Amino acid sequence: MSNQNLFNPNTYSTATYRLFDDKADFAKKAEGIAVGLTVGSWTELPEVAKQKMEKHLGQVVSVDVHEPEGASPGERYADITVAYPDANFSRDLPALLVTTFGKLSMDGRIKLLDLSPSAEFLSAFSGPRFGIKGIRDRLGVHDRPLLMSIFKSVIGYDLPNLREQFLQQALGGVDLIKDDEILFENPLTPLEKRVEACIDAARQAERETGQKLIYYTNLTGPTSKLRENARRAIDAGANGLLFNVLSYGFDALAELANDSAINVPIAAHPALAGAYYPSPYHGIAASLLLGKLVRVAGADLSLFPSPYGSVVMPKEENLAIQAALMDKSLPLRETFPVPSAGIHPGLVPLILRDFGEQVVVNAGGGVHGHPQGAAAGGRAFRQAIDAVMAGRELADYAADHEELRLAIERWGVRNA
Amino acid sequence: MSNQNLFNPNTYSTATYRLFDDKADFAKKAEGIAVGLTVGSWTELPEVAKQKMEKHLGQVVSVDVHEPEGASPGERYADITVAYPDANFSRDLPALLVTTFGKLSMDGRIKLLDLSPSAEFLSAFSGPRFGIKGIRDRLGVHDRPLLMSIFKSVIGYDLPNLREQFLQQALGGVDLIKDDEILFENPLTPLEKRVEACIDAARQAERETGQKLIYYTNLTGPTSKLRENARRAIDAGANGLLFNVLSYGFDALAELANDSAINVPIAAHPALAGAYYPSPYHGIAASLLLGKLVRVAGADLSLFPSPYGSVVMPKEENLAIQAALMDKSLPLRETFPVPSAGIHPGLVPLILRDFGEQVVVNAGGGVHGHPQGAAAGGRAFRQAIDAVMAGRELADYAADHEELRLAIERWGVRNA
Repeated sequence: MSNQNLFNPNTYSTATYRLFDDKADFAKKAEGIAVGLTVGSWTELPEVAKQKMEKHLGQVVSVDVHEPEGASPGERYADITVAYPDANFSRDLPALLVTTFGKLSMDGRIKLLDLSPSAEFLSAFSGPRFGIKGIRDRLGVHDRPLLMSIFKSVIGYDLPNLREQFLQQALGGVDLIKDDEILFENPLTPLEKRVEACIDAARQAERETGQKLIYYTNLTGPTSKLRENARRAIDAGANGLLFNVLSYGFDALAELANDSAINVPIAAHPALAGAYYPSPYHGIAASLLLGKLVRVAGADLSLFPSPYGSVVMPKEENLAIQAALMDKSLPLRETFPVPSAGIHPGLVPLILRDFGEQVVVNAGGGVHGHPQGAAAGGRAFRQAIDAVMAGRELADYAADHEELRLAIERWGVRNA
Repeated sequence: MSNQNLFNPNTYSTATYRLFDDKADFAKKAEGIAVGLTVGSWTELPEVAKQKMEKHLGQVVSVDVHEPEGASPGERYADITVAYPDANFSRDLPALLVTTFGKLSMDGRIKLLDLSPSAEFLSAFSGPRFGIKGIRDRLGVHDRPLLMSIFKSVIGYDLPNLREQFLQQALGGVDLIKDDEILFENPLTPLEKRVEACIDAARQAERETGQKLIYYTNLTGPTSKLRENARRAIDAGANGLLFNVLSYGFDALAELANDSAINVPIAAHPALAGAYYPSPYHGIAASLLLGKLVRVAGADLSLFPSPYGSVVMPKEENLAIQAALMDKSLPLRETFPVPSAGIHPGLVPLILRDFGEQVVVNAGGGVHGHPQGAAAGGRAFRQAIDAVMAGRELADYAADHEELRLAIERWGVRNA
């Protein structure tokens, strides 16, 4: 194939695949992808047509075959990177995904590991409107990880109950509170009333704690009404939005994030992500799905299953997501990593060791299940964060911090 | 759990999962899902709260454990069906998917096998605007399977070339021609010009063949512009739309199908589907993804990888998709099944045996690769269809049908 490895990274976007096959000629397979997903045919073209078509032809960048001695059937694979000319697709994520992994996703045991959109492609994206720094600026908190909490139960509860749940969480000193992702428009807690009740509770708590708070309201409804519903929530006082990005597609998020009328941070929820990332043989890698794509599409926070709790993702995948969300080589603001599920105060040393300071500690049961209630639960987390930031052992710090002590009694401390 | 198996199928939607676990108490796991994805907690609720919350509580419908004697590790599983009260979510597919498989998709080895939306939920959906019968009426063809063809190469080609490709396909007597799913808005063949050129070619062919034709133009672009782009295509003469539904989400399709201004049939392309369905342990079953959901969302045709070609899906999965697309118990028009990829005229007997008459025979290489060109390729397919409909052997029929004879010389005949 001509021009191999001579593509221009400013105008070609690359895709990296892991392809399992016991017998395939992977180099030939890679060429088949580069031609088949771009100009369709190549070798049989007349010379003059080749000259005209060359700028549309995909290029094989690399083929790394992994064929360990004595490999069992099913273990032979290759990581293949192909460069696609931006000239072939429009500047939106559906076009990039359909081009690089549309038909190919169905062609045997193949997983999309990564995409590296070109500078030209990326120039069409504004990315996160706030990013890590913007969220910290809004809260006035720059010197510690942030703390997010989740409602305990929301379905079937009315406004006063929801407001009280919100208030108790807020009184514990959390920075961010998010709706449950399964809370949709409903008669008991309709969008605007819910926002008003919760933001009112946030103000009440703020008077007591002196601390600001962002409430991520779940943005739902028909695709064509997302913008209008976002504005309704914002007009009612919402200062953040939660969005089930995978159920609407990355472009819906990109359009929200790029809309100057939607001037609040957006948290991307990973609902449905498990349909894509867990298989080694199929789907889309978590670091791409919940890392790079979520960031390019413009989420200010990305939630994903932590390696610590019951719903688990391996730690290396968590760290690969984090790397993609904070990769300095991307010309976009950073997205806050939010490892979630099964988090209690005794895990805070581990979370900070693994993620550093630029992380959101996110808890539901670990806040609400505190023996003294949700407000004490929030305080226990804040104490755990303070302890780690001060370089203190949790058990030691807990000696004169009642809420943390009770939390540790309940859930223990995990240091590794 | 109270009320088990006593839910009302008109107001509860069910989800069926396959859950692999070597040790789990599957009955307990099922109860955990039914409670966890609805009211959040149950046993600890006071009696009066239970009375109020009961209508929001999920119900375990069935738990079928598969634990063969001498099963190897990794083989033990259960099929679990849970009923979710419609009261908990809004009447859109993102809400149904996030409720039933949002968080749960990330919880171990679990695959979503099926969803059975309630009558109440389904009443919000109009389904396919045309369906099998409506497409047949438009074409005036009721007595044989339809024939669709695909452009050979589209990227990098200009309007005269595309028009000529279209014309040659149309002259062969195909009923439907679809854009390539990777053809996006581009300077060489922009949407309206492309539609005008192709529809002009369709009219020219119609004068020669006396046969009507639907051209499925690829609908692409930003989510918020899909409706406008669809209208632009229709105003330019497009009488069908191709849509990469999985890259935009099922709701985007549902809104297009429900829009009276978009008065042409829609073909759903399965691009990205391989990221969901192939793993036995994760994702969403093909029959749900490319069958029931595509139909509920309103596609008039659903393309999926045939079991015959190079990009293959097992035949039983193909037939499960077909069953979902044509299931009489759903109060929606039927969606045409379009098994695709690797189809040549010698496969027509097999396709008709497996799918019956209500099928679209869809070919690309099998049309364009004919020794006498695309028009002859189309004729060879039509001859193969005629032969099977007349109860004749293909090889026998080919004796006095030149194009079919040449096709069989090239690709052979497969009878099983």
